[in-house]
Amino acid sequence: MASKKAIVLFSGGLDSTTVLAKALSENYDVTALTIDYKQRHMYELEASRKILVKYPDVKHIIFKIDLAKIGGSALTDEKINVPLTESTGIPPTYVPARNIIFLSIACSYAEKLDINNIFIGVNSIDYSGYPDCRPEFIESFQKMVNLGTKYGVEQKGIKIHTPLIRMSKSEIIKYGTALNVDYSMTVSCYSLNSIGQACGVCDACRFRKKGFLEANIDDPTIYKKN
Amino acid sequence: MASKKAIVLFSGGLDSTTVLAKALSENYDVTALTIDYKQRHMYELEASRKILVKYPDVKHIIFKIDLAKIGGSALTDEKINVPLTESTGIPPTYVPARNIIFLSIACSYAEKLDINNIFIGVNSIDYSGYPDCRPEFIESFQKMVNLGTKYGVEQKGIKIHTPLIRMSKSEIIKYGTALNVDYSMTVSCYSLNSIGQACGVCDACRFRKKGFLEANIDDPTIYKKN
Repeated sequence: MASKKAIVLFSGGLDSTTVLAKALSENYDVTALTIDYKQRHMYELEASRKILVKYPDVKHIIFKIDLAKIGGSALTDEKINVPLTESTGIPPTYVPARNIIFLSIACSYAEKLDINNIFIGVNSIDYSGYPDCRPEFIESFQKMVNLGTKYGVEQKGIKIHTPLIRMSKSEIIKYGTALNVDYSMTVSCYSLNSIGQACGVCDACRFRKKGFLEANIDDPTIYKKN
Repeated sequence: MASKKAIVLFSGGLDSTTVLAKALSENYDVTALTIDYKQRHMYELEASRKILVKYPDVKHIIFKIDLAKIGGSALTDEKINVPLTESTGIPPTYVPARNIIFLSIACSYAEKLDINNIFIGVNSIDYSGYPDCRPEFIESFQKMVNLGTKYGVEQKGIKIHTPLIRMSKSEIIKYGTALNVDYSMTVSCYSLNSIGQACGVCDACRFRKKGFLEANIDDPTIYKKN
């Protein structure tokens, strides 16, 4: 029975790939959990598969939940546009209760698979202001899950790891580069075009571009020409 | 814009049908949310549809999530038997993180549909010891969801209502009977046979039988002859 096992919530994006590399560098036996939530950017799933080719020891679970049926976000409802300029407040790319649902599914797997550690690549510095990326949410979720699960009651406990939560995007990129993350494989853009080019202007692209610039590392992303 | 709207997590069982009747008696505009989680007792879904025929003003959403893919419970994995005698500890009918996942989905809908109230029929008196039915879990979930959602941050807040949490099964039955709940339509048994008869011996049947007995109300359940 391995004592250090972890589930990594893994979208195939820059942050979660960095977290995956970090968990592996700490010798966790990793199960990568990718949620297919019928997101607009379904190429995330493809990216997650391609990235894991480099990490053959990682088990990969793809779990489907149709959040497009609920909608309410530019990422799950094609009638809502992805903003292409900076805005104030929580942007329309916020998906109602997404990280709560994702972490809940991860906790269900953690109990089933006897895994105490869950890693998630949330970040509250270079981010879109999503409430479910903030430290106070994660701390509260951690308490809740250990009251509401068999693991909690049996005092094994589930630990939510958020190694990136207080890092800037450039710090994340430097950190991942040192761990040999191939960022050319990761996808951030909310609005990739049909030939796989990032828009360069959505929130996710802007944070990514700024991160590479500030890290003084070449940005391998292919952006479309405007 | 109706000011009193509620989502009721509605399985078609005794408790959630009572909660539905209670929310309606308090003049909530009710959306019943039934989760099809590939549970062993899929007749729950059929019961939920039949019961709602009596409540034509209630909107009904059936949301699918395949918890059988995760497994780890007698209710989602046919290889695990439903216990037919009383046991100690959390029984194998516990579904890993089930109410956390259900409430998370309800919260996602609440945000999308601009609904502040969620009702759930959890009970911590005549129950199987599931950690996700206890008041301390619900209180913690309530805090968490108001830190992790747009609703929370915008200070509208989501309120989780658990009107049955400290009632005995007989109190629930008396309460629902006064609200004209037709318990003959509701399904509790974890192990119904192919002609729709309750086993009479699983945890859910035992609590139900005891409840009707103590309430001194005729039990309309059809139990199989042993």
